[in-house]
Parts: sequence; structure tokens; C-alpha cells
Amino acid sequence: MKRRRVLQLGAVLGGGLLRAGELGRPLGPYGERSPFEKAVRWRRESKTPEAGSSFTPLADSYGILTPSALHYERHHGGVPAIDPARHRLILQGMVERPLILTVGEIKRLPSVSRIYVVECGGNSGGEWGAKTAPDVQRSHGLVSCSEWTGVPLKLLFEEVGVRAGASWIIAEGADAGRVQRSIPIAKAMDDMLLAYGQNGEALRPEQGYPLRLIVPGWEGATHIKWLQRIVVADQPYQSRDETSKYTDLMPDGKARQFTFVMEAKSVVTFPSGGQTLPGPGLYELTGLAWSGRGRIERVEVTSDGGRSWQAAQLQEPRLRLAWVRFRLPWRWDGKETVIASRSIDETGYVQPSREALTAVRGTNSGFHYNGIKLWKVGADGRVTNVEA
Amino acid sequence: MKRRRVLQLGAVLGGGLLRAGELGRPLGPYGERSPFEKAVRWRRESKTPEAGSSFTPLADSYGILTPSALHYERHHGGVPAIDPARHRLILQGMVERPLILTVGEIKRLPSVSRIYVVECGGNSGGEWGAKTAPDVQRSHGLVSCSEWTGVPLKLLFEEVGVRAGASWIIAEGADAGRVQRSIPIAKAMDDMLLAYGQNGEALRPEQGYPLRLIVPGWEGATHIKWLQRIVVADQPYQSRDETSKYTDLMPDGKARQFTFVMEAKSVVTFPSGGQTLPGPGLYELTGLAWSGRGRIERVEVTSDGGRSWQAAQLQEPRLRLAWVRFRLPWRWDGKETVIASRSIDETGYVQPSREALTAVRGTNSGFHYNGIKLWKVGADGRVTNVEA
Repeated sequence: MKRRRVLQLGAVLGGGLLRAGELGRPLGPYGERSPFEKAVRWRRESKTPEAGSSFTPLADSYGILTPSALHYERHHGGVPAIDPARHRLILQGMVERPLILTVGEIKRLPSVSRIYVVECGGNSGGEWGAKTAPDVQRSHGLVSCSEWTGVPLKLLFEEVGVRAGASWIIAEGADAGRVQRSIPIAKAMDDMLLAYGQNGEALRPEQGYPLRLIVPGWEGATHIKWLQRIVVADQPYQSRDETSKYTDLMPDGKARQFTFVMEAKSVVTFPSGGQTLPGPGLYELTGLAWSGRGRIERVEVTSDGGRSWQAAQLQEPRLRLAWVRFRLPWRWDGKETVIASRSIDETGYVQPSREALTAVRGTNSGFHYNGIKLWKVGADGRVTNVEA
Repeated sequence: MKRRRVLQLGAVLGGGLLRAGELGRPLGPYGERSPFEKAVRWRRESKTPEAGSSFTPLADSYGILTPSALHYERHHGGVPAIDPARHRLILQGMVERPLILTVGEIKRLPSVSRIYVVECGGNSGGEWGAKTAPDVQRSHGLVSCSEWTGVPLKLLFEEVGVRAGASWIIAEGADAGRVQRSIPIAKAMDDMLLAYGQNGEALRPEQGYPLRLIVPGWEGATHIKWLQRIVVADQPYQSRDETSKYTDLMPDGKARQFTFVMEAKSVVTFPSGGQTLPGPGLYELTGLAWSGRGRIERVEVTSDGGRSWQAAQLQEPRLRLAWVRFRLPWRWDGKETVIASRSIDETGYVQPSREALTAVRGTNSGFHYNGIKLWKVGADGRVTNVEA
């Protein structure tokens, strides 16, 4: 509050600062945001925008929830227009009693709601490269956080009766790509949800309306959208999206497969690439931290290029597998510096530096990058990507 | 899962149950809900829809968050279209250093995000009458729950320096009605927020864009929207909206004034008025509970007209002053019955029956009704309002 302006009360009352009271617009059935708000998902120009990604504007986010309208997208065959009255979910394979369910039948079952991050396995994949994205939306925007509502999958499996020897499920979407992913059945029996609700209403079409899987803490591609079938099996299917994609090419040329868990990660969203600080002074530095292994216990921030690290305030409640918003007062002296954050989760895992990560993983991979993200603040207040 | 249909796998695979994979719609900048979703806010037909209320469709809600697009509305002069670049907040009155702030300056200050219910003081006001609303949207829909982000008001008051003797603040909106409410300064110094964010993005226009007050647990009318001025004073203003409205007329003809706290309340949303159960069997009964005095500790449900009460499951996390979603398995035997819920908060306050409430308050009032809500399930499965 450096640029405080003391008031002459007469000037205020007589000077037209207070708004003239013209009649506003009436009550409405389903609201829209203000036309002055411009944040949108970003995507690369493409001749095939049905197969690609769009990125959540993290620098414009507040709190720990992503508006459904701005949840990141990753589609392999576009967004199907599904009539929920005609949609069915089939459970088959190594089960005693195969089952077809309508959406209405699913909604009648016991349900829970949980706030969870969903992160694409390829989020911040560009960071493996030499020249990375200029802002946090494009570098880290394939992650979002919502309240998801649905049926614990284990209830359905108890109903259909899993046969001895079953160890995997194969989930299939109703999109043009018929995306299929194999998931160990132990995860399904643990905390997976058959979700139909997001942020207080039905799933959005881009998020799998009317049904999707939620696989808490695991890479986004396993959270099959527009879910139409689950097959119980004794082995994975080796589908396209778990062989040609979503595997991690290691320095020795071999690929890691089924690396489901998204490791602890964090990123500073203010100040971040593309922003400009108006001048030296006091700011609140903020960002987001999350881990597929559980709860975030600590976030540390550097504002001197890594020489010293300071614990940030973590916003409560800190929910398992949800975002944690972190904040730290920061006085900028007007000199060039580098800022970054690193998160530590309940297992003690510490988000690694780029160097530590690439020493193990090499730079062949496109997936599961969770290195510390550096932003440079220039003497002119411009914030840029150190690596860009 | 009574209507389980066992599959002939051949029929499934050959029978066209699985969706043909036509190419879907491309990635998009800012999403919309599915055209198959129809829930909207309800309002009475009116020649002056700029002054009135619209109601959240509680029976269509999931989890504990209300989509911003469906947050209830209560306007006295319509929704102003405010350019945030031109909006100002003035702090004046009994302060050492009066202040004008831009929205940008406010966003630079330390902030917090909290999930809070906002409930109109007049919510379920129709329940005072002999003939009440047919469904839960119209009976109880002037309440919603969002994640709000903003600056703790006490930070601003520390900055302007409150003078000795100051005991109230008067908050004023920039709507045509220039709604003003007086609030004890102790509440401002406790947990009030100067909010600019809702559910991960900017406030919606109907919710006060670009700035509103959040007064946790207190009646909605104090959460001044389109906030343009706060005056610090040594007494309340006795404005229109705290004299002619938002006072509680008691049986003796005297009115209670400044009854800010919204007492513990709950309502069953499924099954609720206007719904029809398809037949006897197992259902999950669900609803919402909240209290302006703090956390909900227990919700009890009756499905036999009040002869017996059973503790419902409460969804975690149970946050202070936020909604708690409660759930209970319920086997309907197909006979006529009456269902209801009652909530108990951390202070031990028990949501009263209609009879207990009206014994104290009479039926003159339009505000602060929090009696137990009864729904009748008919032998035909139709659910109706017992009092309608």
C-alpha cells in the first residue's frame, strides 16, 4: 500500500468518484463471467485441434479450485456430444456378473465428493528441452484442481464380483480415439471414483460428460473421460496410450512404463513469466504445490536464485492430492534476481532441481517432469523464464 | 443396483451399445456446460426483475460447492456492469488515514481463500407461512457455497488506523440501490474478507464484481456487493436495509434488529419436493447442513416422520461456516412416510422444529427461519412438501 492517496472528503463526495446509480441488469438463470475478464485456455495453433492440449491460465487463478470452464483439456479425438439418457457403462471381463448401467442408475448409488488435482503426465514436458515456455500457463498449465463427485469404484466391483486372478482394469472412453488405459485393480479398490460431478454441477463435456474416472494422484491420461467400458483382466492391454505414449524414455534408451504417480511439484504463479512488477516494494509471492503421493507438508521459496530458502505459508485446509496454495511476503529491492519454489510431501519426497532430475532421467522423456521452476525478475520488473 | 442386467457379451460387442467414434469438437478457450444440463436459478415472474431473488437449484447440486453460474442472487437495483480499471474502494470516517484503493492495489495485498456459505437472511422465509414452496430450490435456494479469495479486512483497517471510539463500519455497494449495511467493527477485525475471487476466478457480476464483502456466517445482505465504500463510525447508520428490511418482527410486534448470525440449519435435497422415486428399494438420502456459529458436528435424519433419528455420514473435510454434505443409505419400503434432517453445530445448538421455532418467534417474521424441513414420500413415490 505504498501508493496510498489521502482523501479530501469533499473531493470524494463532490467529485464523482462514487458511481452514479443507474439500474443494472436483471436476475438471470445461469450466469456468465464479466466481459472484462479475459483469461482463457491457451492452445497451439493446429490444423487438428481435436487432438491436442489446452492449458489452464494458472497465473490468473485464485485459491485452490480451477473453474470448470478453464480446466485444462487433453483430447485425442475431440469432445463428443453425449446424451446422458443414451449413455451406458459396461463392466465386463473377469467378473461374476457383467453389468450395464445407465447414468441414472449410477447417480442413485452411494457417492462421495473430493477435491483432487488432475495433472497430465505431459505437464511441463517442455521443460525437458533446451528452450522452454515463456509463461506459467504454457509451461505448467496442464494441471487443474476440482471437487469431483461420484461413486467409489470399489462399490461397483463388489457388485459385479471380481474373479480370482484379476489384477488390472482396462478403461475405455467413448471418444473418437476410444482411448484405453490399463490400471492396476488395487488402485480401483482403493480410491478411484466413477465421477459424474465437478465443482457442484455435472462434469463439463471437455471433462468427460457424463462419466469419467478419477484416479487420485495418478497421471491424467488414466482418468478416462466419456467412460463407456471397464474390462477386468489379468494383464494390461498394452494400448496405444500406454505404449507409444505416456511412457518415459530413459537415458539408456529403455522406456519406463506404467509410471502412474505424479511426483511432488510446485510452481510460483506470481511473479511468473510474462508479468511485470510496477516497481520495487512489498509483494505477496504466491503459487501452487501438489503431490500424487499425498499431502504437501512444506513449500520453500527462494528469491535469491537458490542461495537461501524460506518456508512459505500454506493455505488450510491442506487436502491430500489437492492443490495447496502457498504465499510469502516478499520485498523486491529492484535488482535482478531469480525466484523459485520447491515442495515437500508427506512421504518426505523433495521436489528436485532440474539438474538432479535430469541426472537420473536424462532429457529424452516428454513425461513426468517435476523439476523446480525458476523465474527471473529483471531490473526493469519484467519476469521471464530463466530457461527460455 | 436392483435393475441389474446381465450381459450377453456377444450382444454388447455386436449390438451397437458402444458408441461409434465420430470426431468430436475441438479444444476450446472457455468452456460451457453440456446442452443436456438444464438446471437454472429460479425466480418469480416480475415486472421488476432488477429487484428480487433467484434461487440455487439445490436438488441438482453435487458436493459442497455451488457453481458460480448458479449462485443465488438477491439484488435491489440490478447487476451493475463495472469496469474494474475504473472502480475504486474508499475507506473513510473515523480513521487516521482515509484511503482510496484501485482493484489492482487490492489484489497486490496479502490474501486468503476460504470456502464459506452465503445465505440470504430471507432464505426459507416462505416457511413461516401456512403454504410453503413445493420444492427445495424454492423453499431453501437462497443459500450457496463458494471458495472466496480476498484480503482480510483487518489488514486494511490496520493500514488506515481506526480512531478510538469507532465501533461500526458502514459498507456501501455501487449498485443502483446503493445498498448500505452497518456491521460491528469487531467482526471486520475478526474474519471478514474484501473478496475479489470466487471458485478460482474473479467474482461473477451477480456476486459483486469486482469487489464484495464476505462476512462469514452472517446474513447475506451484510456481504455488500460491488463494494465502493466503507465508512468507520461510532454507531450504525439505520439504513433502509437494516430497518425496513432484514429485521425480525416478533409476536409482540417489536422487531429484533442486527440479528446477523445465521443459525444452524439443514435440508434434505434427495429425496425432496417435486422428485419421484421409481419404486421401493435402496437409495442414498442426501442433503446439506451449515451453521453461522461454526462447524457442523452432527446431522440426524428421520425417515419415519420423526419417531426415530439416525446419524448421517458427514463428508470430510467439515469446514467451519461451509456446507457439510450428509448422506445416509435408506431402504424405502414403498409406504407413505415423512423424511427430514436436523443439524447440530459445534456450539451444541440443535436445529429446531417448526413448532419450537414459532413458539419463540411467532410467524410475523420473514427472516432467519431455520426450522426442520419435512418432505412427504407418497406411496406412488411422489415427494411433496408436507406443509404445501
